[in-house]
Parts: sequence; structure tokens; C-alpha cells
Amino acid sequence: MTITAVGTIAYDSISTERGKRNYILGGSATYFSLAASGLAKTNLVSVVGEDFKSSHRALFSKNSINIENVSTLAGKTFHWEGFYDETGNAETIVTDLNVLQSFNPILTDSSSRAPYLFLANIDPDLQLDVLRQMQKKPKLIVGDTMNFWIESKNSSLWQVISQLDFLIINEGEAQLLTQESNIIKASHYILNKGLPALIIKRGAYGSLLIKKDAYFAVPALPIENVTDPTGAGDSFAGGFFGYIASPTAFTDLAPEITFKKAMLMGTVMASFTVEHFGVEGIQAVSHEERIHRFRTLENMMQLINIS
Amino acid sequence: MTITAVGTIAYDSISTERGKRNYILGGSATYFSLAASGLAKTNLVSVVGEDFKSSHRALFSKNSINIENVSTLAGKTFHWEGFYDETGNAETIVTDLNVLQSFNPILTDSSSRAPYLFLANIDPDLQLDVLRQMQKKPKLIVGDTMNFWIESKNSSLWQVISQLDFLIINEGEAQLLTQESNIIKASHYILNKGLPALIIKRGAYGSLLIKKDAYFAVPALPIENVTDPTGAGDSFAGGFFGYIASPTAFTDLAPEITFKKAMLMGTVMASFTVEHFGVEGIQAVSHEERIHRFRTLENMMQLINIS
Repeated sequence: MTITAVGTIAYDSISTERGKRNYILGGSATYFSLAASGLAKTNLVSVVGEDFKSSHRALFSKNSINIENVSTLAGKTFHWEGFYDETGNAETIVTDLNVLQSFNPILTDSSSRAPYLFLANIDPDLQLDVLRQMQKKPKLIVGDTMNFWIESKNSSLWQVISQLDFLIINEGEAQLLTQESNIIKASHYILNKGLPALIIKRGAYGSLLIKKDAYFAVPALPIENVTDPTGAGDSFAGGFFGYIASPTAFTDLAPEITFKKAMLMGTVMASFTVEHFGVEGIQAVSHEERIHRFRTLENMMQLINIS
Repeated sequence: MTITAVGTIAYDSISTERGKRNYILGGSATYFSLAASGLAKTNLVSVVGEDFKSSHRALFSKNSINIENVSTLAGKTFHWEGFYDETGNAETIVTDLNVLQSFNPILTDSSSRAPYLFLANIDPDLQLDVLRQMQKKPKLIVGDTMNFWIESKNSSLWQVISQLDFLIINEGEAQLLTQESNIIKASHYILNKGLPALIIKRGAYGSLLIKKDAYFAVPALPIENVTDPTGAGDSFAGGFFGYIASPTAFTDLAPEITFKKAMLMGTVMASFTVEHFGVEGIQAVSHEERIHRFRTLENMMQLINIS
């Protein structure tokens, strides 16, 4: 089934311990939709500038990602420049919003009736705008955000969160959002606002699903060569939501098990992303590669291995 | 079955966000043996000064910990003073080695024939001394260390490691030992020296068992009130080795499953330790409390919950 996903498309300039890349394809919606693409179809809702390359449009199309809700505006595509220190912390050097400043998402009729909605990291007011345009209540709404919006659009962000089924954020974001350093307390603070479930991303330490009365922890896959952490979180969300929206997900599993397995698939897709610069690691992942890492991860968690 | 364990007994002065305690019972062998005590018997090999309180001797005896290999020397008990910042990082203010400087472990005949040997964090030359005194090759030898010994006694430490079945260290120690920041690469560097298995402790992120061709990850329990992290790693080791040495461990399980379940028990005992200052959290844990947290942790890891 189809996911409508609003988020950014960007050209990123990235410097890590492994090298430097200039103006490579990035953005939250890009990583999300590519990570989800082998599992489910995505209607991408985003904006690019006149500089956006036709080869990149072709990459989306080749991966069956619907880009008819991607506007092209006069000016340049959103640009982010950053570097990662040896511990993997990102520092932003330049943020050129460019066409993102004048973006007003407009959903086609079919996008506004999609059964699944993902609100990738973007201005919470745009996330609210997309929520308002949905003509049919989606089965599942999942959202993400970042420090910048927690600080600058706090009230709009809480309006978004109140409408989500799952919020997917990292530890630092959860701490900033709640002003609470203990991550378990921070999570329950957010759940107490009425959100049913929360996923805390912890980078190389994996992720944690938290509900009022339950926890589920997934480790990260052992990756020896982390090349570029950009987009890992968006790819996690893409694998997670792609798994849930995949045609076979609910065939023979209880919803709770599907959500848990979806976290494993999110972890798998993030692992492909970090091994290469930009979207290189996820633009052509085969079904076999996905399943292989999924099984590896399952075995890492099992007291009694099944394979 | 019985574990012979060499390590420190200390009086600690600890300051955390939750308060301050002066000259409370601590030390690697203390935490280890108390955490193991509900599961298996320990012959403690250590040293104290003339200031060591009879109430603390009584605490060991009450928990069926054999202290006949604990020497009492003229002078004061080893004293450590430190504080933890809000992120849980420890900073040492004072280390008074005191009687530890003139300690020469001497094992009783029965201690030197114990089936299990734990080398807690202490001078690697003392760990080697104990290894040499073992009259019968133990079934399993597990060891721990810390940054101070990695830097000051590197060669002796590698001699110890080469005789272990499991090394249990934290991420920072693994990185320092190998000069490699990627923890997966660091682990394989150590395994390539001939060690069969390694457990990496990751604090609030849990722990990771690494063998040449296998990984097993255990999350930490969700703890809302971390009072004092001192001894968490030693308690993990105590729960881990205590489980392995417990009378029922190998009754109906394959060794691989026992080692994995032992990691869960290590995690459980560490969780009791961090909730209180010093040994308050582990000096009287009931069987039911242990099992309850063990089941909680099992459920946190399971795709399909069994309870």
C-alpha cells in the first residue's frame, strides 16, 4: 500500500573522516522514500529548485517513487553543508533554505487519500498543512523532527505530535523536547501527552520502542566502516514504515509483531545508508540483501537462534 | 559451584547528581561477589586495612561469601573518591592505594581448585599471580580491567587476556586497548589475539557479546532513577558469572544459551546497583526480584513475547 510522505529534498555537502562530497542528493524525504522503495510505494511531497538534476528525478522514478507532488520553484534546491567529527557528531556549516522558504505543499487527490502518512523532518507548520489536506484519516501516521524545529516551532510541533501514532526521534531530540536528561523519563513525558508510541533512535546503539507499558529494544547491526551517517534516521523511518506498508506485512502477524519487525527493517536500511556517502548505499538494495541483514539482526537478539 | 574472584575491596567517596556519600563499601570484588551471591558462592581474594569495619565483614558472611582469602594488612583500606557528571561520566578526585600497594594474594587450597575464576579489575600482575596459583585449570576464566592498567601495565594485561575465556570491558576500554574507535573493529582486534569471546559493556545502552562469527546484543533495563553508576560493570560481571556458576545453569541448556542468559542476569544485577548508592541496591535482592527483571528484559528483546 502507498505512503504519502512530506519532507525535504536537498543537495548536501558532507565532510566525514572518510572524505568529502559536494552537492550530493539528500534530504529527509529522499532517504525515507528510497529506504522504503523496495517495500512500499511512496508519494513524495516536497520541493526542488530549477537546479534539480533530471538524473535525480530519474532515480526516484526508477525506484517507483511518485514525484508528481514534488513542486519545482524558481531558485535553488535546499542545500545543507556539514561535517561529522570522529565520534559521528554532526556540525552544520551552512543551511541555505532556498526554495524551501516559499514551499506550500499541495497534495493530489490520490495522495490525500493514501492509507499511510509519514511526516519527515521539515517545518512542523508544513507537516500540519499536509495533515489538514488528508481527505481520509490514514490508518497510521508517523512523524519525525529535529532540534531546529523543537526550538523554533515548539507549539506547532506539539500539535503535530498529538496527531501521530508513532514519533521517531533521536535521544538528543527527546531530551531537548522534554528538558529531561533521563531518556526513559523523557519518553514517558511525551507519551503522557497522548502519543501512543515512541521510537528513540540511538545511532550505533540501536533503537528503543516505548509504549506506556512496554519496551522493545533493537540493537544496531555491527558496521565496521561508517562512511557517512547522514540520512540514517530517515532511512530507519523508511525501512520501518515501508515494512508496515508492504503488501505482506499484516498477512499472518499480529500488529504488535509487525511493528517490532518493522523496527528491524528500519535498522537494516539505516545500516546500508551509513556505509556509503549520501544515498549510494540505499539506491539499489536487493531483496536478498535486505533479508540477509534482517536475519543477522534477528539472530543478534535471540536467546535461541533459529537459523 | 564456586567462583574464586580476585579484586579490590574499597571505601569509596562518591558524589553524583543525587547526593554524596563518604567512605561507603565498594571495590570491584565487593560488587562482583554481592551480585553473584544469590546465584553462586564466591571465594573472595582481596585485601583490607585495619579500618575495615566488622559490619562489612558480616555483610559478606551473611551473603555466603567466603572471606578467608581476604588479608588484613597494617594501614588503611583502599580508598577511591570520584564524582559523576550529569551524563554519568566518572572523574577521579583521589585514589589512595593504601594496603593495596603491599598486597600479595595467597589462595587457600580449596580456592586454588575452584571450577570458576574471575579476575576483577585490579593490577594485572596480581591477576597473573592468582592465575599461577590455580592448582587445577578452571572450567571458565573471566576477566575485567580498566583504563589505568591498560596504560600502565599493558604487557601484563595482554598476558592475562591470553588466558581468558571471556573479557568483559566497556567501550572506552576496548578503544584504548586497541587504539581503534570503531567498536566492532576494536573487538575483532582483541579476538584476533586468541580470546574466544568478548563482552562490551555500554552502560545505559546495554551490552554486546562478540565472538569471531557471532554477535548477541542485550539492552539495558529502563531505569528512571540512576543514583550512582559505581560498580555497575562489576555487578554485571557478578550476575553474568553467578548465573553460569549457579547449580541449575547447565541442567537443560546448551552452553551458548547459558552464556546469553547469563548476560541478561548481568544486566539485571547492574540495574539494581545503579538505583542506589554503593552496594545498597544489591546487598539483599530476592530471587523473585531477580526473576521479575530477568523476564522484563527477555520481553524487551522478543519479537513474540512469551509472557
